[in-house]
Amino acid sequence: MAKQRVSLASGTSRGVVLDLIRAQGPISRVALAEATGLTQATMSTVVRQLMTEGLVIESGRGESTGGKPPVMLDVNPSSRFAVGVQLGRESITYVAINLAGAIVGRTRTLGIGTTEPQEMIARLASEVDSMLVGLGIEKASVVGVGVVSPGPLDLARGVILHSPHLSAWLDVPVREMLSNAVRLPVILDNDATAAALGDFWGGKLDARAHATVYMGSGIGAGVLIDGIVFRGASSNAGELGQVMIAGPDGADYPLEELANPGAIVRRARELGEDARLALGGDDEFDDFRAIAMAAVRGDGGASALIQESAERLATAVLTLANLFDLDSISLAGPAFAIAGPTYVRTVLRRLERDFFVRTQHAVRVRLSTDVTDAAAVGGAALVLQTELAPRTMGLS
Amino acid sequence: MAKQRVSLASGTSRGVVLDLIRAQGPISRVALAEATGLTQATMSTVVRQLMTEGLVIESGRGESTGGKPPVMLDVNPSSRFAVGVQLGRESITYVAINLAGAIVGRTRTLGIGTTEPQEMIARLASEVDSMLVGLGIEKASVVGVGVVSPGPLDLARGVILHSPHLSAWLDVPVREMLSNAVRLPVILDNDATAAALGDFWGGKLDARAHATVYMGSGIGAGVLIDGIVFRGASSNAGELGQVMIAGPDGADYPLEELANPGAIVRRARELGEDARLALGGDDEFDDFRAIAMAAVRGDGGASALIQESAERLATAVLTLANLFDLDSISLAGPAFAIAGPTYVRTVLRRLERDFFVRTQHAVRVRLSTDVTDAAAVGGAALVLQTELAPRTMGLS
Repeated sequence: MAKQRVSLASGTSRGVVLDLIRAQGPISRVALAEATGLTQATMSTVVRQLMTEGLVIESGRGESTGGKPPVMLDVNPSSRFAVGVQLGRESITYVAINLAGAIVGRTRTLGIGTTEPQEMIARLASEVDSMLVGLGIEKASVVGVGVVSPGPLDLARGVILHSPHLSAWLDVPVREMLSNAVRLPVILDNDATAAALGDFWGGKLDARAHATVYMGSGIGAGVLIDGIVFRGASSNAGELGQVMIAGPDGADYPLEELANPGAIVRRARELGEDARLALGGDDEFDDFRAIAMAAVRGDGGASALIQESAERLATAVLTLANLFDLDSISLAGPAFAIAGPTYVRTVLRRLERDFFVRTQHAVRVRLSTDVTDAAAVGGAALVLQTELAPRTMGLS
Repeated sequence: MAKQRVSLASGTSRGVVLDLIRAQGPISRVALAEATGLTQATMSTVVRQLMTEGLVIESGRGESTGGKPPVMLDVNPSSRFAVGVQLGRESITYVAINLAGAIVGRTRTLGIGTTEPQEMIARLASEVDSMLVGLGIEKASVVGVGVVSPGPLDLARGVILHSPHLSAWLDVPVREMLSNAVRLPVILDNDATAAALGDFWGGKLDARAHATVYMGSGIGAGVLIDGIVFRGASSNAGELGQVMIAGPDGADYPLEELANPGAIVRRARELGEDARLALGGDDEFDDFRAIAMAAVRGDGGASALIQESAERLATAVLTLANLFDLDSISLAGPAFAIAGPTYVRTVLRRLERDFFVRTQHAVRVRLSTDVTDAAAVGGAALVLQTELAPRTMGLS
């Protein structure tokens, strides 16, 4: 991906200013200087540069506080766009967002299935191009493409390290191949991390320590501290699916083996519920959806299955909240699309009862605004943040 | 505590420079400018200020790289001191460190027991004074006192929120009372957090994401990202004792209820091992020490008890490592003083087998240099860092 970065110091003030205008605009230069602690002179230089690049515009005059009403600044939403791509075995989701973070386009196509990486990369590139053409977005205004995938990644090399559903893709240089094919900078990141950033970027999240719990085929979490992604030593923090909790035999198991969609479907089969719930057996995720639908309709057996998975998730989320001292949690990912409210209720109840410093502060729990496509939206937001407003904590 | 802070921007460069000189000195101005990215002019100003304050000295000339050999800078170790106080029911540990992080004094006195806060605060202040007099340290050169305590704290108010062993102290304004009594700035912080910082400050820790697992009567963890304490929403992150793991009946329990010294002693009693292991029953921690000693001597029953606790700790540490993507862990606290190597071995074996991104990087596991007093040393280090080299991540 493009390495034309301004120096760290100026990159940082530029990023902070752009991010503030995006989040709080319309805003005056004086208010910006106050909020950032930068001098008026530095602020003028930064704003001038952002206006020259077309990212920021003057959007009229604000209210007078005595003297002349100040000129207000806002981002120019259509000046830049970013594309997010959510890789999945069954479907690929494409999202385009503008500089203000608003979704301007969304498509869904057939998933990876058993397509070979080489062929798939070509298809991804052509589908990104088609979407941009369809939306009338010029490629020159696209900052980049954020591809999100489950599983641990090697961010530096841009490869997927481990994924039970994408085994042909391991160690394939996805980022580089796609960047060459689509002729845009490409970022590869984890789906949960991206979803967390999407929540922050889109939702004007007001939290010091936030986690987005993500459930697709697997389970992960993205953690944000003051809006910055928590990365850890190798950018593989937040592996919620690897939290050890008690299984049915009383031994410890990774959460993922007990509570992900595949585990719920297996449990339904063990209980002989598959025929009654009309589980086809062809596709695990379809079968999970059928169970979730039945639960929502009030089926007792299906409700018990979903509730059991929600209780286990709640136990692991309690551990996550106690270790990171979270004050905000959202649930995102296709697995929460149908029975999400049950999961939210169960997690919230558990935290209200057992969160260790509950006398100090509450932990808000909610569904992501864009439950199913949160990771795709976040992939696009990640590109905007990385390319336009870089901020870092730990390795990034 | 003293609120005379320089502005954030200059405070940060000053702090970064002082910290670099401390960690890497003797070091030249040119090397400092290179390492920090600051201009030579800014660097000269910062260094001049540090020399005026007596914190930094010129310590001779380095090796020539062609021209004149550069003047080398180092911290002036005896220019400033800090005191760390580790509160415990059975003992209080006092440590004095100099600006270079070296321990220059250490004493241990009777613990809090059932002493009332008011009386205890007066005793703490007088014992700090006695130690300083005994060491010939002038009070004017003492930056402050770092008091560490188990349990969740309200850092802003400087009070202990919850501690089964210090129940009379809850909501007592410890920080303010002690500061008034000892006439020095006082910081109150968590024992595990302090121990982590002590590992970093003293051990020249080379880690991106480090956790110090702390076991006294309870269990906690302090997490550092690039040497900066990870705080979370209310400075109560790292509650390792609250990680849920499978108990003997197959339900989930907080680690602390299964694996802390008290739990091990209770388990010994359940198994009827108390008479054979000569457990007195008066003091839980003494009884735990007796079990650990017996295990080290090769007693089968005692070894099994310690091993069981180590396995449970290892399960929770695996969860911690997977959530924070750690590359370094140390074990500290009085509970590791005797059987520490067994815990290190068990945790290491578990991580080598099950750490999720083990193909990406290893997780080093070791005992803290100063196992028993790590929190006291860390309390003192915390004062130096906060007062002289403030750095922050999340709330601090």
